[in-house]
Amino acid sequence: MAQLSLDDTRALAHTILRHHGFSEDQAAAIADTMAAGQRDECASHGLYRLLGCIATLKAGKAVANAQPETHDIAPALLKVDAKGGFSPLAFRRGLSPALEKARQNGLAAFAINHCVHFSALWVEIEEITAAGMVALACTPSHAWVAPAGGSNPLFGTNPFAFGWPRAGQLPFVFDFATSAIARGEIELHRREGKPVPPGWGIDDKGQPTTDAAAILAGAMLTFGGHKGSALSAMIELIAGPLIGDFTSAESRAWDNGAGALPYHGELIIIIDPRRFLGAQAEEHLARAEPLFAAMAQNGRLPSQRRYEARQRSLAQGITLPDALYRDLLALLD
Amino acid sequence: MAQLSLDDTRALAHTILRHHGFSEDQAAAIADTMAAGQRDECASHGLYRLLGCIATLKAGKAVANAQPETHDIAPALLKVDAKGGFSPLAFRRGLSPALEKARQNGLAAFAINHCVHFSALWVEIEEITAAGMVALACTPSHAWVAPAGGSNPLFGTNPFAFGWPRAGQLPFVFDFATSAIARGEIELHRREGKPVPPGWGIDDKGQPTTDAAAILAGAMLTFGGHKGSALSAMIELIAGPLIGDFTSAESRAWDNGAGALPYHGELIIIIDPRRFLGAQAEEHLARAEPLFAAMAQNGRLPSQRRYEARQRSLAQGITLPDALYRDLLALLD
Repeated sequence: MAQLSLDDTRALAHTILRHHGFSEDQAAAIADTMAAGQRDECASHGLYRLLGCIATLKAGKAVANAQPETHDIAPALLKVDAKGGFSPLAFRRGLSPALEKARQNGLAAFAINHCVHFSALWVEIEEITAAGMVALACTPSHAWVAPAGGSNPLFGTNPFAFGWPRAGQLPFVFDFATSAIARGEIELHRREGKPVPPGWGIDDKGQPTTDAAAILAGAMLTFGGHKGSALSAMIELIAGPLIGDFTSAESRAWDNGAGALPYHGELIIIIDPRRFLGAQAEEHLARAEPLFAAMAQNGRLPSQRRYEARQRSLAQGITLPDALYRDLLALLD
Repeated sequence: MAQLSLDDTRALAHTILRHHGFSEDQAAAIADTMAAGQRDECASHGLYRLLGCIATLKAGKAVANAQPETHDIAPALLKVDAKGGFSPLAFRRGLSPALEKARQNGLAAFAINHCVHFSALWVEIEEITAAGMVALACTPSHAWVAPAGGSNPLFGTNPFAFGWPRAGQLPFVFDFATSAIARGEIELHRREGKPVPPGWGIDDKGQPTTDAAAILAGAMLTFGGHKGSALSAMIELIAGPLIGDFTSAESRAWDNGAGALPYHGELIIIIDPRRFLGAQAEEHLARAEPLFAAMAQNGRLPSQRRYEARQRSLAQGITLPDALYRDLLALLD
C-alpha cells in the first residue's frame, strides 16, 4: 500500500487534473472533493475516481475549463449551469446564494444542471449543515438499475442524501445509493476479481448473479424492493425533468457507449430550521438528540464509520492500493 | 359483505362523526378522507379507521371541534396548527395558501402541527398534483418500529409519499410506510387471526416472529435494512423537531398507554415545475412519460392498483366485511 498525507492526497489529484488541462478552479474543486472521499475511506469516491474523470475528458464528454453560470430563477429557486464541467465547482458557485435564499424564504431548491457527476453527495451535505441548515440532495446517474420486477436497466444508482446539523458535534448525515449497492463497489469487485453478494444485480438475461462483470453488463437492482424502486423513480423525476435535465436513461443514451461518467443534473433542498422554529429553534433541534442516542445504542449512526476514518486519516494520512497508485502516477506520463 | 354506494360510504362516516360530537367541518374533512381510502380499497385507511378515531376521542386524545389556525411564518413556509384535531381539516385550511407560496417562490414547505393522524398521505398528494404541483409528504407516527440492528421501538411507521402531475392522466403517486408494512395491515391480520409474512417484525425479546399480536407488543421492522432505517430517521427529524413537533417516541409517550391514534405533525414540500422550467415546462414534464412507460412494461406503476379499485368503486360502490359494518353501526348506538 502507498501512504500519503492528506495534503499530498489533494495535491496528487490537483496535479493530475492540471496536467490534463483542467482550469485552476475546476481542478481545485474536484481535488478537494476527491480528497474528502479518500480521507473518509470512501474508496469508490476517492482518488480512484480520477481514472474515470480523465477517461471522461479524453472521450470528449467533459469540459475541463467550464465556467458555471448562476441563474436566480425564483425567490426560492437557484439554478447553476455547470456548462458541461464536473459538478463540484458548480456546487461551490451556487452554495452561498442558495443558502441565502433558504435564509430569506425558509427553504430553497438548488439545482445543478449539465454537469458530469462523480462525487459523493455527503461532501456537499456537510457544507450545508455547517451553515446550520437541514439538507436533502439527490441525483440520477447512468441507467444501470432495473425497476422492481423488471429486467432492463432504467434507473441510475440514484443516491439520496440527508443532513441535520448538531450543536457542537459532527452532523447527522446519510448518503445511500437507491441501488442495492453503489456501482463503484461493483467496479471495485470486478477490478479485484471478487464475487459480489447475492441481491446486487442480474445478468443480461435477467437472472440473478454474483459475477460483478455480468451485473455491469446486465442490470443492478434497487434496495428495498418496490419501495426502493419508487424512491429511485422519484429521484429520476425531481433531479431530471423537474429541473430540465436528463434522466439516467437519457444520460446513458448521450454517453452512447463512450463509457464516460454520467452527465445530468442534481437537486438539493435546503431548509432553515431557524426560520421554521424562531426563538424555539435550539430547544427543538436538541429534541433530535435522544433519537440519535437511541440509534447509536443499537449500532452506529449512518456517518459514524466515515467520521472514524476521518479521525484516522487526519492523524496518519491515507493509504492507496499499490496498483491504484501506479495507475494514478501513469496519468502524469 | 355489506355493499354501499360511495355517497353512502361518505355519509356513514359523516353521520358517525357527527353523532360523536365532531363539528361539521371536522366531520366533513375526515369523512371525505376515509371515503377516498375506502373507494381505492385501502382497507386500512378506509372506514375501519372510524373505530380508532372514536376510540381516540373517547380517550380524550382528540379535539372534536378544533379550529385549525394558519400561520404564515416565512415567504415559503406555512404552518397550520390543528389544535389537537385530526389532520384532514388542517390540510384543507392550509392547502390554498401553501400552493400560492409554491407558485410565488418556486417551492414551499407546509407543516401541519399538533394533529391526530390516521390518514393516507396519497389523498393529500393528489390534491396537490391536481394543482399542477410536484409534492413530497411525510409524517411520524407512534414509536412502533425498531431501527436497523435494534430491538426496541424508536421510529414510527413513518410514511413517505410523492406525487408528479401528468398531463391528461392520473398522477404518478406513491405512498409507502418506511416500516416493512403499514401497522394497519398487521392490525387487520390480528383481527382476522392470520399470521403475517416473515420480515415484518420482532417480538418483545427482539426475535423474528409471524405472530401479528407479538409484533404489536414487540417492534415492527423497517423496509430495506439500514437504508430504510435512515429514511425513517430523516422523517422523524423533518416532520418532528424541524417543524417543532413530536417524534414518534414523544407521540407514544404522550399517549401513555391510552391506545389512541398518533399525535404529531406532518411536513409537505410543494414544488412548482412551471417556476423551475418556465416556457419549457410542458416539454420537460413530458420527458417523464417514457420513464413511466418503461416502469409499466415491467409491472404496475405504484398507484395503478388504487386507480383500478377507484374505477370499480365508482361503478359499483364499495364492500365492507360484515363484522366491520356491524362494528361501525354499533358506533351509532
